[in-house]
Amino acid sequence: MVKIGLLGCGTIGSGVVELLAKEACHRNGLSIEKILVRNKDKHNNKPYGSKLTNRFEDILKSDIDIVVEVMGGIDPAYFYVKQSLLKGRHVVTANKDLIAKFGNELQKIARQNGVRLLFEASVGGGIPIIKPLSECLAVNSISEVKGIVNGTTNFILSRMANSGMTYEAALKEAQQCGYAEANPEADVMGFDAARKLAILSSIAYRSNVDYEDIYIEGINNISADDISIAKYLGCSIKLLALSRRTEKGIMARVAPVLLRNTNPLAGVADVYNAIIVKGDAVGDVLFFGQGAGKLPTASAVVGDIFDIVRHSLGNRCQVSSYEEEAPTAKVDMEGCSSDFFIRIKPRSRVEAMDKIAGLFERFEFVFPDRSKLQRPVDPDQIVFIAYDISEGDIDKRIKSLKATTSVDNVLSILRIEREDQ
Amino acid sequence: MVKIGLLGCGTIGSGVVELLAKEACHRNGLSIEKILVRNKDKHNNKPYGSKLTNRFEDILKSDIDIVVEVMGGIDPAYFYVKQSLLKGRHVVTANKDLIAKFGNELQKIARQNGVRLLFEASVGGGIPIIKPLSECLAVNSISEVKGIVNGTTNFILSRMANSGMTYEAALKEAQQCGYAEANPEADVMGFDAARKLAILSSIAYRSNVDYEDIYIEGINNISADDISIAKYLGCSIKLLALSRRTEKGIMARVAPVLLRNTNPLAGVADVYNAIIVKGDAVGDVLFFGQGAGKLPTASAVVGDIFDIVRHSLGNRCQVSSYEEEAPTAKVDMEGCSSDFFIRIKPRSRVEAMDKIAGLFERFEFVFPDRSKLQRPVDPDQIVFIAYDISEGDIDKRIKSLKATTSVDNVLSILRIEREDQ
Repeated sequence: MVKIGLLGCGTIGSGVVELLAKEACHRNGLSIEKILVRNKDKHNNKPYGSKLTNRFEDILKSDIDIVVEVMGGIDPAYFYVKQSLLKGRHVVTANKDLIAKFGNELQKIARQNGVRLLFEASVGGGIPIIKPLSECLAVNSISEVKGIVNGTTNFILSRMANSGMTYEAALKEAQQCGYAEANPEADVMGFDAARKLAILSSIAYRSNVDYEDIYIEGINNISADDISIAKYLGCSIKLLALSRRTEKGIMARVAPVLLRNTNPLAGVADVYNAIIVKGDAVGDVLFFGQGAGKLPTASAVVGDIFDIVRHSLGNRCQVSSYEEEAPTAKVDMEGCSSDFFIRIKPRSRVEAMDKIAGLFERFEFVFPDRSKLQRPVDPDQIVFIAYDISEGDIDKRIKSLKATTSVDNVLSILRIEREDQ
Repeated sequence: MVKIGLLGCGTIGSGVVELLAKEACHRNGLSIEKILVRNKDKHNNKPYGSKLTNRFEDILKSDIDIVVEVMGGIDPAYFYVKQSLLKGRHVVTANKDLIAKFGNELQKIARQNGVRLLFEASVGGGIPIIKPLSECLAVNSISEVKGIVNGTTNFILSRMANSGMTYEAALKEAQQCGYAEANPEADVMGFDAARKLAILSSIAYRSNVDYEDIYIEGINNISADDISIAKYLGCSIKLLALSRRTEKGIMARVAPVLLRNTNPLAGVADVYNAIIVKGDAVGDVLFFGQGAGKLPTASAVVGDIFDIVRHSLGNRCQVSSYEEEAPTAKVDMEGCSSDFFIRIKPRSRVEAMDKIAGLFERFEFVFPDRSKLQRPVDPDQIVFIAYDISEGDIDKRIKSLKATTSVDNVLSILRIEREDQ
């Protein structure tokens, strides 16, 4: 019998309890021994009521083989996971915040104690990505990881694109559907996507990509005009998490970008997630599915539990998804270049266009045919695409633009994802 | 040091040799000890020349940990793999013919000898699918597996759709590009796809789906008119491998179908593969990438080698992707129903339409607007869609149709994949 201690019994935790009751789990001899919750009274009428505890010591005291952490957040999850590893327990976690911030340290502790720390559910919900990337594709040198890894923002952007509604209205709808939190900051500001990108990139490049080194832009400034003009240009706006191996180290950013509709990621709608990995041997591989939710996420958690049961119970091992002693990656945006979609509010239209022509070498004005726009856009704006500008350079040019008396305001600066990348 | 014996050194084999020279493989202590080839002279100037042998005994005699079979075909691969397992060697194979036909038996031998038989490369080239399906998604009850698993036919159908060329011309181009064999039968008749479907279904449903029980139609009768009218209807024609859990057992078929362009599989072009798995917890998960080729396939082979090195060397284990003692699946098409796209050549147009109206309860004639067709189609044909007809019933109705004097010939009968399935 394999004994499991569950830390937390919220949405994901109750999903894990539900799946562990399945026949396949009995066949593997899995059984939940203890469930740590803050408030036992909340769960008292549940069938697992007798297993509840509010003392972490009960999780470590009992004869538990695998600790499953599904409480989320850093405190007290970090302490619990660390203690569990130090006491020689295998740990499975769905906690992206924890792994993005302390993954490297916790992996090291796991290795030192001959146990495993698995976290398939921390990225992409139920989509198998961590194991395929770290095991099936292990011989590949990965040059790029990119994807749509936050369902909340993808739902909001999809709603804006489908219905022409504003960001505020779409956010409200996402909150009503339960796809966005009351405080949506972690999602809409891009922090959640950046944590997942840090986890994926650390595995892909076999180095420790620090979440705080990632360049982050949220979707909170995306306007209905952006969406409408992007659509006119044959593009969708998506919050893209992207990292790439460069000569200088690793380039990593989370930002809303224009994707041409021929791009496979452009069709990923609503709360779905998709991740593309580029390997030197395998080429591009894409993984797609539900990136969140109770049962999809619990499916990944139980997959990790099975992995430990199959491979690691009974023999203390030295397996890690991260490389041993992963070096810290140099994360750098300089030197990378993009095409940019820019909207400005002019004071003087002619003079502003003249200024743009002086500031950008390769650019193109966009004059949308009003009859082909999904919804009317403010006619008093200038839209242009500037080609091939380095990340270090764009700020300077935008600053010059803003300093011009003919320009009232810069409304949008969005990257355009190139086809060949 | 982990010693590898390679059986075969053709396209995939030389890819494996190439990847095993990478630094990641040295780090894992991998080294090729012996390479079995039919004709040593062919390889004499290669850097691995000193490792060549043409005697299988050398593979088993040496102190080899893992036998890697990349020769393809049944004879002598079956004998070699069986002997290797019986002698306690782990085996990695890319051989879909072998696994589709003897996978169940060989898995049993592997289990009895405490070794592993892995075959990630047998389906989908480098796309991780076998391990994600058998491990990451293990807690799911899988209700459906479907996909485009044969690159050759997908290339041919893509070329026909893009350029309006005939099947024969597209096949010739595929042969010139090296995507189709001189004898293309295994691909174009659907046999290759059916073998892959048998492997995927056996894992998904934890039962032994016999390749020979799968209903198979090839693409060799698809005409330019089919493609053109399908396109007019907003559909692509794809060779779809599909299996589904039904009340009566397993439904499994390989056949060209019309997919609406909103279907994620409709956009999978050229030699790419994509597989969708439907699980009760995880929902739909899609895997996409290059389904064949030297390095993508070798990437999957080496991924399996790493798996054995990480998890199984040194401890004789009891791990299997198939369930122990997998029951044989009852494979059955009866009771399943589809919508059908049907083209007939009438002798008398009016009478034939009348006959169709009498034979099919729910149907719809298609009168393509010539100005919207990609290329002109034979005007002297009747195209209709018949809805919701059981697999057991379609043959009878087509037979009645053929027996009618007003009908000269039935040109096409193609299933239409429903959106909700």
